[in-house]
Amino acid sequence: MDIRQEIGIHTKQVEEIIIKYLPKEEGYQKTVIEAMNYSFLSGGKRLRPMLLQETYRLFGGKSDIVEPFMAAIEMIHTYSLIHDDLPAMDNDEYRRGRKTTHVVYGEAMAILAGDALLNCAYETALEALKKEPGNVQIGRALCILASRAGIYGMVGGQTVDVENEGKPLDKEKLNFIYELKTGALIEGAMLIGAVLAGATKNEQNTIQEVARNVGLAFQIQDDILDVTSTMEVLGKPIGSDERNEKTTYVSIEGIEKAREDVRRLIQKASQSMDSLVVKNEFLNGLLEYLIYREK
Amino acid sequence: MDIRQEIGIHTKQVEEIIIKYLPKEEGYQKTVIEAMNYSFLSGGKRLRPMLLQETYRLFGGKSDIVEPFMAAIEMIHTYSLIHDDLPAMDNDEYRRGRKTTHVVYGEAMAILAGDALLNCAYETALEALKKEPGNVQIGRALCILASRAGIYGMVGGQTVDVENEGKPLDKEKLNFIYELKTGALIEGAMLIGAVLAGATKNEQNTIQEVARNVGLAFQIQDDILDVTSTMEVLGKPIGSDERNEKTTYVSIEGIEKAREDVRRLIQKASQSMDSLVVKNEFLNGLLEYLIYREK
Repeated sequence: MDIRQEIGIHTKQVEEIIIKYLPKEEGYQKTVIEAMNYSFLSGGKRLRPMLLQETYRLFGGKSDIVEPFMAAIEMIHTYSLIHDDLPAMDNDEYRRGRKTTHVVYGEAMAILAGDALLNCAYETALEALKKEPGNVQIGRALCILASRAGIYGMVGGQTVDVENEGKPLDKEKLNFIYELKTGALIEGAMLIGAVLAGATKNEQNTIQEVARNVGLAFQIQDDILDVTSTMEVLGKPIGSDERNEKTTYVSIEGIEKAREDVRRLIQKASQSMDSLVVKNEFLNGLLEYLIYREK
Repeated sequence: MDIRQEIGIHTKQVEEIIIKYLPKEEGYQKTVIEAMNYSFLSGGKRLRPMLLQETYRLFGGKSDIVEPFMAAIEMIHTYSLIHDDLPAMDNDEYRRGRKTTHVVYGEAMAILAGDALLNCAYETALEALKKEPGNVQIGRALCILASRAGIYGMVGGQTVDVENEGKPLDKEKLNFIYELKTGALIEGAMLIGAVLAGATKNEQNTIQEVARNVGLAFQIQDDILDVTSTMEVLGKPIGSDERNEKTTYVSIEGIEKAREDVRRLIQKASQSMDSLVVKNEFLNGLLEYLIYREK
């Protein structure tokens, strides 16, 4: 089977798991829950929960305590998209071919739906601790989740990005933004999977190394696609970086060097994966796919 | 000593504890951290961390694992104020006599500072679990924190409030909003204190009962003050509820009935406190003070 098809099947399987953790659309809070679920259910490859689950499997994890963490990391990713799209931020009206949350539910509700999803991520991940109180691996996974989503992780990268919009960026600052804004959550996903499955400290370090390279490659690929793709394929307007006068990896390095670097980073990640005793063929394929993806 | 003075001293002591958990204003993320700290340090009585600490003391708690939870609950309260004040929400320019976060740092940064503070609350509370991995009381306290801040707690109340702005509310819906928007976090604070100190299930139920009455009384008192106070005392414009055509406890019940109900609720809370074997005189004074407060 082609890796694209395989990923498609996995996406469906991951979705079946994570939607179980969505709140029911009922009660006085119905509207905000609808807004949360609208955003959460707007598709996507579910890359973060998939990486989390596959890294968990890589190290032999078999329990369902991984599930709430899969849902939680996707909730954090989703809340960040809702807030990114707001008029005060990127002011985007479309995402994955659908109207963004604030366009459908209004700005106030979009802010609150984002807040609610971020909080819900912790409520959800804590389900694992409710099931197994005293499990120290779950405690450590919670700490990883929180740190990778915070100011020294995703939200930190986002603020530096927003603050520097329209200003020229040097490569160091751009790398910093990429590592935090996109990289931190990808690293978090893989590291949580490893920790929950009981990977050794050395194995955790290797996974962290892999995740860093993959995260950076993923973001560079995003920049490439913003230049080379079409709105039909991408589901959102292309060329937005140039319109917003955004410094990107492509604008600094040029498209050819950017493509080469994606290849190099994924190769490094593959080599690190090969150094592990354990194997997960699908995970290797998934990581390599990131350079061929079209959206 | 007068209870006002006593509370003042406690506020200072609580502040000394919680500011230890603020991130340092350095690195590329300096601006968002400044915005977080600006909002966090804008004063207030620190009622929630104080209630948390005093309930912890009531049940004989002596460890410093309570401290990260005190900081965390104040961070959650602060993030909710930042987002409440945004142009898309209440559009308030002043809070506690100072310019609101979005006025000083801009809207995008205020949204992100709120997000960062919410996330930081969990990073901070999880410090307790890092210190004592496997401590099940800490795990339970984390679950209480997350649930009381979420859609079945504070954020849920906030969304129903926002959605019904300008519409007439019946008493049932108003009570629902009050219980969630203000009550949930006060209940969370006291319950976390009780759980961390190892209170029995019965004692936890009593505290929950107390907190519910206090939370509702606190919110009704807010409505009263919006009518009867002055901008100098309150540090924010008064009469905003009437201007925004907001249904409040006062607009439904009238000011006299509202005052009477505050007294009745606090009396009920006091009776529940008296039914406990353990005593904390300052906590009793603090709860009663809520009916005499002027801001």
